[in-house]
Amino acid sequence: MVMERQDLDELAALIGDVERVSVSAADREAHSRDESFHEACLPDVVIWPESAEEIGRVLRWANQRRVHVTPWSGGSSLEGNPIPTRGGVLLALYRLNRVLELREADLQVRVQPGIVYDDLNKRLARHGLFFPPAPASSDVATIGGMVANNSSGMHAVKYGVTRDYVLALKVVLPTGEIIHTGSRALKSASGYDLTRLLVGSEGTLGVITEVTLRLRIVPEKVAAVAVFASPAEAAQAIYDINRYAPTPAGIEWMDQHIVALVNRWTGMSLPEVPMLVMEFHGTLEGARAEAEFVGEICHDCECVSFEIGHSRAERERLWAGRREAHNAVKQLHNDCDLVIGDIVVPISCYPEAVERIYAAGQAHDIAVYTFGHAGDGNLHFEVLMPKDDPNAHQRGEALNTEVVNYAISVGGTATGEHGVGIGKRRFMAAEHGASLELMKRIKRLLDPNGILNPGKIFEEFD
Amino acid sequence: MVMERQDLDELAALIGDVERVSVSAADREAHSRDESFHEACLPDVVIWPESAEEIGRVLRWANQRRVHVTPWSGGSSLEGNPIPTRGGVLLALYRLNRVLELREADLQVRVQPGIVYDDLNKRLARHGLFFPPAPASSDVATIGGMVANNSSGMHAVKYGVTRDYVLALKVVLPTGEIIHTGSRALKSASGYDLTRLLVGSEGTLGVITEVTLRLRIVPEKVAAVAVFASPAEAAQAIYDINRYAPTPAGIEWMDQHIVALVNRWTGMSLPEVPMLVMEFHGTLEGARAEAEFVGEICHDCECVSFEIGHSRAERERLWAGRREAHNAVKQLHNDCDLVIGDIVVPISCYPEAVERIYAAGQAHDIAVYTFGHAGDGNLHFEVLMPKDDPNAHQRGEALNTEVVNYAISVGGTATGEHGVGIGKRRFMAAEHGASLELMKRIKRLLDPNGILNPGKIFEEFD
Repeated sequence: MVMERQDLDELAALIGDVERVSVSAADREAHSRDESFHEACLPDVVIWPESAEEIGRVLRWANQRRVHVTPWSGGSSLEGNPIPTRGGVLLALYRLNRVLELREADLQVRVQPGIVYDDLNKRLARHGLFFPPAPASSDVATIGGMVANNSSGMHAVKYGVTRDYVLALKVVLPTGEIIHTGSRALKSASGYDLTRLLVGSEGTLGVITEVTLRLRIVPEKVAAVAVFASPAEAAQAIYDINRYAPTPAGIEWMDQHIVALVNRWTGMSLPEVPMLVMEFHGTLEGARAEAEFVGEICHDCECVSFEIGHSRAERERLWAGRREAHNAVKQLHNDCDLVIGDIVVPISCYPEAVERIYAAGQAHDIAVYTFGHAGDGNLHFEVLMPKDDPNAHQRGEALNTEVVNYAISVGGTATGEHGVGIGKRRFMAAEHGASLELMKRIKRLLDPNGILNPGKIFEEFD
Repeated sequence: MVMERQDLDELAALIGDVERVSVSAADREAHSRDESFHEACLPDVVIWPESAEEIGRVLRWANQRRVHVTPWSGGSSLEGNPIPTRGGVLLALYRLNRVLELREADLQVRVQPGIVYDDLNKRLARHGLFFPPAPASSDVATIGGMVANNSSGMHAVKYGVTRDYVLALKVVLPTGEIIHTGSRALKSASGYDLTRLLVGSEGTLGVITEVTLRLRIVPEKVAAVAVFASPAEAAQAIYDINRYAPTPAGIEWMDQHIVALVNRWTGMSLPEVPMLVMEFHGTLEGARAEAEFVGEICHDCECVSFEIGHSRAERERLWAGRREAHNAVKQLHNDCDLVIGDIVVPISCYPEAVERIYAAGQAHDIAVYTFGHAGDGNLHFEVLMPKDDPNAHQRGEALNTEVVNYAISVGGTATGEHGVGIGKRRFMAAEHGASLELMKRIKRLLDPNGILNPGKIFEEFD
């Protein structure tokens, strides 16, 4: 529906503060696209709520009027997850960005959704605590967005993903009702796990207004880089480390192509061969022992070199190449749109998945790079689609389709950490089969009028 | 409803094997009660299905006829979870007890629900792998029951609970439809997490027929026991270990009362003061470093002694007392029914919870013991209700109610690992508030006729 003047007046009255309701072109434009290449859509109105109660009033009103509502946390998502595809109301959650309660002794914190990951961890570091998932976009990713997309990153292999750290939620349902899920107990067998149903539901089932997170204590850290002469030896090392070593806190794959690109971008002179960049956490002795154990494995796999670093400076140096991988692709190709792939395959298929991606790049005559989280099988690939090449998108999407279908065919998933959003909807039937219908039934149960974040996860609710 | 001769004939025809359909008194009796004191109820008929398809036929038939169906995995539960309170069909899942597929390289295994936890881990140990949750009843608990109840045990503090290890499920819905949830990917952000909605649903939403579990590699282990002069020092150590040490693989609380009882039962001569029994996992150097770190913390908390053990024999000796705690209570009081409490409180409340339980025991004039998992706040208490004491049950339940309400009042949960079953239903409204209604709506969505495992979790579907 198109919103009328009267609708806007009613909304403004619900919020009671004209400063926090805007129909300006600039505000609408600023909330029309995320970090993906998915088509921008303008909301009719942007609202900056300051409480769950305000959001409840807006949703109750919108549900009665059948107005679409899209929650917006930081806008750094990669699959169009918060794009208001049907216009309507955009709920910008920036003002809900406070730490409400730090319970140090219980290793938990209660926050609002708009707080940025790095800002939260800086505050927690003063207390020797941290929230581990570590998305690559940690400087802009908000906790609300991370919960909505079940985000994670390079530490997931050891620590798990956002879902594993959410103890409790305060959520406004599409009908405007406010509920609390979960508790402050670190584990529970009490009833259905609504908390984990809501985590990863991408704002289609409710608007998250408070999150209680379990925390970990900041460990001692040791970093390591193993360099291999060819992908075959690196693949064997990935296998052997996962199979025999205590789980590292990170084990990142970079192939020769992405290393070369990183060198170009940073001016570094890394050897342009496959490498694994790793981190180990625990006591210093424990982390060092794990690194040395993995070093022996890498030497058995005929690595060219294996370097360990303890100090912060050494660790940063060893990780610098990996940290710049996405930037190198993006900044050296700002004339391109990017498909950012996010498959997960069973870890035994990881080397084959890398090979398939490059082969698909050749077959479709389009440039592609891979890197990712080799400890949990999460492989990113970035496809370069020159903006001046009229059918580059078509070839890029063909490659994407082929690779995602491969991942699903070996029992993997279309998305490990970016969510379904708009870009992965077309794979849901292949990945989930009959259980996709059950997801839709749950969507209808909670959002009978389909008002909340339309067109995400499912093609049907667009 | 009461089942008629014709119903039984139809069921037998659906199974096609009279040997696997029984109305004998012995078979019905054997599936009328679990390990709790909750009242036994006889099913009308016991069926031993051998496939998901058979279960689908039975459920489709039962859903049409409005016959109640209760899945039964091992029967070792503690809250009446599989008691067929409304009679009907009991699905005994023992024959579905195979390892279907071990994928060593992917660190995962696909099993049927009837396999026993220890049997699975014995098979996995040959490959250096294990499934970590470690329920105390590991010699009888089945994987299906563990998934249904989201079971865990002493390793949960480091490794998480059953829910954290279930990658995929094959499930027969109450309407007879068979669905697959999840995938073989170690992480995913693809759609609603139906897998974790089903884990812990206690057989009220579907019958689990296959489980894909993530595994961990068997670590090196170091055990330790810290002995304290009084509860105050032990409480400080619990606080400091959780707050400052890398997470141990187990940190078990035993107070002076339960230690004394263990001595009586085993003939051991443990010092009858509070103690913490711990385990550390990793490389041997790493585990030892963690144990020594915790040792320093315990010395700072003025422990009387801190002993570390590396060899299997030493570790078993250090853990022997803890392992016998439940047996000591049960075997020395076989003239008593037991309430087995399973609260979780925020860990800062753990010492207070122990005090409250003993105070409540005195107030209600009934014997009680506590022990539990101090790393995640899970505190067990066992209330002795002499069978010849006519109002012992009333006093025991009064104590239970008081303690569970305390746990909920401090943000904890009524059950950490045993599930709701029958015994914890009355606390659900207090614990979950408005979200309990959402759980019931999900129950109605999946089981519109309320045929599956009636009377569990919710009082309403009885």
